[in-house]
Amino acid sequence: MEHIENDDKYNGLTVNSGVKQPPVVNPYMKRRKKRPLPSASELIDGILKGNVTMLSRAVTLVESLSPEHQAIAQEVIEKCLPYSGNSRRIGITGVPGAGKSTSIDVFGLHVLKNGGKLAVLAIDPSSERTKGSILGDKTRMEKLSIHPDAFIRPSPSAGSLGGVARKTRETIVLCEAAGYNNIFVETVGVGQSETAVHSMVDFFLLIQLAGTGDELQGIKRGIMEMADGIVINKADGDNIDRARLAQAQFRSALHLFPPTLSGWMPEVLTYSGYYELGIAEVWEMIDRYFEFVKKNGYFEQRRANQARYWMYETIDEQLRANFYRNPEIESLLAEKESRVLANHQSSFTAARDVLDRYFALISHK
Amino acid sequence: MEHIENDDKYNGLTVNSGVKQPPVVNPYMKRRKKRPLPSASELIDGILKGNVTMLSRAVTLVESLSPEHQAIAQEVIEKCLPYSGNSRRIGITGVPGAGKSTSIDVFGLHVLKNGGKLAVLAIDPSSERTKGSILGDKTRMEKLSIHPDAFIRPSPSAGSLGGVARKTRETIVLCEAAGYNNIFVETVGVGQSETAVHSMVDFFLLIQLAGTGDELQGIKRGIMEMADGIVINKADGDNIDRARLAQAQFRSALHLFPPTLSGWMPEVLTYSGYYELGIAEVWEMIDRYFEFVKKNGYFEQRRANQARYWMYETIDEQLRANFYRNPEIESLLAEKESRVLANHQSSFTAARDVLDRYFALISHK
Repeated sequence: MEHIENDDKYNGLTVNSGVKQPPVVNPYMKRRKKRPLPSASELIDGILKGNVTMLSRAVTLVESLSPEHQAIAQEVIEKCLPYSGNSRRIGITGVPGAGKSTSIDVFGLHVLKNGGKLAVLAIDPSSERTKGSILGDKTRMEKLSIHPDAFIRPSPSAGSLGGVARKTRETIVLCEAAGYNNIFVETVGVGQSETAVHSMVDFFLLIQLAGTGDELQGIKRGIMEMADGIVINKADGDNIDRARLAQAQFRSALHLFPPTLSGWMPEVLTYSGYYELGIAEVWEMIDRYFEFVKKNGYFEQRRANQARYWMYETIDEQLRANFYRNPEIESLLAEKESRVLANHQSSFTAARDVLDRYFALISHK
Repeated sequence: MEHIENDDKYNGLTVNSGVKQPPVVNPYMKRRKKRPLPSASELIDGILKGNVTMLSRAVTLVESLSPEHQAIAQEVIEKCLPYSGNSRRIGITGVPGAGKSTSIDVFGLHVLKNGGKLAVLAIDPSSERTKGSILGDKTRMEKLSIHPDAFIRPSPSAGSLGGVARKTRETIVLCEAAGYNNIFVETVGVGQSETAVHSMVDFFLLIQLAGTGDELQGIKRGIMEMADGIVINKADGDNIDRARLAQAQFRSALHLFPPTLSGWMPEVLTYSGYYELGIAEVWEMIDRYFEFVKKNGYFEQRRANQARYWMYETIDEQLRANFYRNPEIESLLAEKESRVLANHQSSFTAARDVLDRYFALISHK
């Protein structure tokens, strides 16, 4: 029977030199026994009953690179799909230092006061390098991490943004099937991942800080235009006036933007995550948003567009991957790129030459 | 010997019913004689000498769909490449009604006062449908259209944005080789074409109107963040105060954006295209920009990135085209899309199924 490690912490620590050796025993680190791989139907049953262990194990399979695990994971996702969708999916972004963890902690507790359950996920394709810069340490969300109705899962740390996004989106399906009717997807406001998160949530919340200078440096251009709401953190003590000024500035900036597709006018609020001020107001805005987009039909439309988007996005990514990962193409590309940069060949004929080679290669496989 | 039509106006007007018929003679429309197709070396020689007829004919070949024409065009482009690059490439966008044509007319005359030559090109993939909505009628640029040092060419009207962008970019190469050291690329501020134009120019100018309401409706989200300069037109008469107010608003909005890659802080100016007020100031801003980015190395860096971008963009577009234009894939996609929208299959497994079919198909060609 096949086994999987059910705890991420142990992954990759097994020494396998090819020679049988006695196991290295560390008395301080008691190794858990491997548990048998659950079947797809066990996982599905467990998830639909809201069993957290089964949910966790299914997510681990979703994140696994093993084809056997993926086969089970895909079956589980497929069966959970009809039970998914019944949630508010909220993306939360902001530069490091904006106080995202504290904010998610208090926002999450506020949401859970009204009952229901909350899953907090993350997208951070850099987490492999930075050893899990976001959500890596669950204890940063002091209250949520011990709340029985909260499920916190760090970003999968597997390579490409596309891969990470796929896994997060599949995890949303599993969480919803397990009864989590509030989904937060956290991301750091510095890379490409905001577009990915924006494409899998219903509401996109941007956490900002007061001030118009250095604090904005980290936010990538274009993110402000994606926001359905901008909330300015640390509006407390001496900082209240600066936060209010920032609020006014953001409001007038948003008025210069063309209208959103939803017809919703993004709101700008101030709050204090640390002192838990203004939290209810932020949530009332989000309630207003959901009421608005459910009424005008945009909610359903956005979800359908997102499902379509991810299908086509996956296709495009795989078409590219198949091309760029071909070793012969890789070296030809490098050569053509230097020719293009030296003005010896046009971008278009260089592209055409490499494409001709590629299609010749794959049609003779 | 092969012939081409050297005048776009006559293209597509030939009646071809399959039966030999006497030519329809319209006494008011004297049909020019077909001229022989020039050789690549004739075209190259002509272009390098600044011969406008040869330049025009080469551009017509660039825009042609005939493989024979394309072969000559690509040879001409390749030979002109080493002589290209010595120009200021300026993208100009703005909603219909912002006064783009009048502005380009006066900006162009201002530029030509200092000597040199000016080519005005356009990107408008919709021009097929709208019968050349921009630059289609050269006479809208009254003064430039009769200026000996100005070369005005409407948007090629061939299908995809990628195709149109490629042709415009190749036309830039030919114009530069012919000594045009100022290139304007016009686009309407409502579609995807701004990204394409932004990716082929050194400076991106956004023409706006005073007012924060209806005038902005047409501008696509994200375009403001691409601008290196925003200029507010119609700052004349009663409208001056409103234009100044808009200027202040845009300035404060730009301060909320994160810094540009170039390190340049986009400027906001007012002017009047019709009354020719503030034109020199707009051009001084553009001069400052070029001085700034040539000094800090960004100019060269952006050009190299653009050459690279178009190579990879062409590859990605062709990879997609080869996939999506396959009739079997097309029908499978439609089927899978309905399954995804009905929550019967996940976006990812649907994508995987279609990809598997595609790679099976093309490897057995």
